[in-house]
Amino acid sequence: MLITKYGTIQPIYEIGKIAKKYGVPFHTDAVQAIGSIRIDVEELGIDLLSMSAHKFYGPKGTGVLYVKKGIPFENLIHGGGQENGKRAGTENVAGIVGTGKAIYNAYSHFEEKNKKIQSLRDYYIEQIMQQIPTARLNGDRRKRLPGNANFSFGTITGADLVKALNKEEICTSSGSACSSGFVRPSHVLVAMGLNKREVETALRVTIGKNNTKDEIDQAVRCIRRYVENESENRVSN
Amino acid sequence: MLITKYGTIQPIYEIGKIAKKYGVPFHTDAVQAIGSIRIDVEELGIDLLSMSAHKFYGPKGTGVLYVKKGIPFENLIHGGGQENGKRAGTENVAGIVGTGKAIYNAYSHFEEKNKKIQSLRDYYIEQIMQQIPTARLNGDRRKRLPGNANFSFGTITGADLVKALNKEEICTSSGSACSSGFVRPSHVLVAMGLNKREVETALRVTIGKNNTKDEIDQAVRCIRRYVENESENRVSN
Repeated sequence: MLITKYGTIQPIYEIGKIAKKYGVPFHTDAVQAIGSIRIDVEELGIDLLSMSAHKFYGPKGTGVLYVKKGIPFENLIHGGGQENGKRAGTENVAGIVGTGKAIYNAYSHFEEKNKKIQSLRDYYIEQIMQQIPTARLNGDRRKRLPGNANFSFGTITGADLVKALNKEEICTSSGSACSSGFVRPSHVLVAMGLNKREVETALRVTIGKNNTKDEIDQAVRCIRRYVENESENRVSN
Repeated sequence: MLITKYGTIQPIYEIGKIAKKYGVPFHTDAVQAIGSIRIDVEELGIDLLSMSAHKFYGPKGTGVLYVKKGIPFENLIHGGGQENGKRAGTENVAGIVGTGKAIYNAYSHFEEKNKKIQSLRDYYIEQIMQQIPTARLNGDRRKRLPGNANFSFGTITGADLVKALNKEEICTSSGSACSSGFVRPSHVLVAMGLNKREVETALRVTIGKNNTKDEIDQAVRCIRRYVENESENRVSN
């Protein structure tokens, strides 16, 4: 179970309770959530939780899997006795230390940092809605990660928009990084009830702790230009 | 198939030929060999080869698996499409870059560096044999990695000797790192025909590019002291 889907915070506590009731071990993919919201594994009834360091400014390629004591666990890589035999192989010491430091940093000045990120995100949503009235916000308006906003623009595809914005040094995403390279509509957006066009023209914007209001203005300006250009192209074709 | 066992270089070419003859994919664990000897996968008939960066002064926790084109390969971690789907998950970019640089360095000034390491190793073997005549050299005298020497000392156990030398800031090993923590005799030394006492009292010394003759003298002095002490303890007990 993903803790968030397209930025929308899932009812983990309720799901955890159901899992517990039926004796099902409960794993949550908290990759997008760690560093953005507070998570108490005990309180939420989580048995296993995974996170990825680069999502909270840690080193790329290092992750953490929390396994509650007593939860049955099949070893992932066999051979040596490292990590209690669960994952054999010499440990990535620098990655581990870096991840520890990064998570410490992520939860320092947490409220202050998130308030700033959230206000920038709200500003982004507001500007997009004002300037591109045809844009549709995907996911829940309030129960969402502070830095996340996902819009379907209806004209230019998300993939083309990502490429165009990339040239202007604005990094965005049109789907899960795990599936980039595949031209396949997001099954999550489909499940959320979006039609084909809305799924194809979706763009995810994630705002980080170092972003500024000027950058948001620049991003909105660029997105508007590409969305309108594509719209005109279509009319003239 | 390990390319080396306790420093002894195995007849990889001959094994590769047999594997090919019978259509068996041929994997070699070259973790100890990379950086110490030259390996040509084509020439040796190797289909798969694994290496570990920290063995050639690269970052800890990063390894490489060479897979010859066309060799059937079951994906190791499922999920994302990274590394052609073979091993899902965000790549450890710093680790990959560091490993590339480390292997480049390992094979720069290769002969010169290895000549130095080998002469130090030969000096170590010579000194041990002169000063501790009861010591037994394990593995082949000539067909071995340039920096490696493995002796059975007959009195103090390898594990105790490692601990004692560690206090003097001399790092050695009594068995495979993969099995440290387990008190089990090395199955490789057993297969090589050593008796229980010889296996238990084995010590692996690996000489690196930064070691000096003074350090070898110091190590030999320390080993001799511990071996003789243990020997006297036994006589007096």
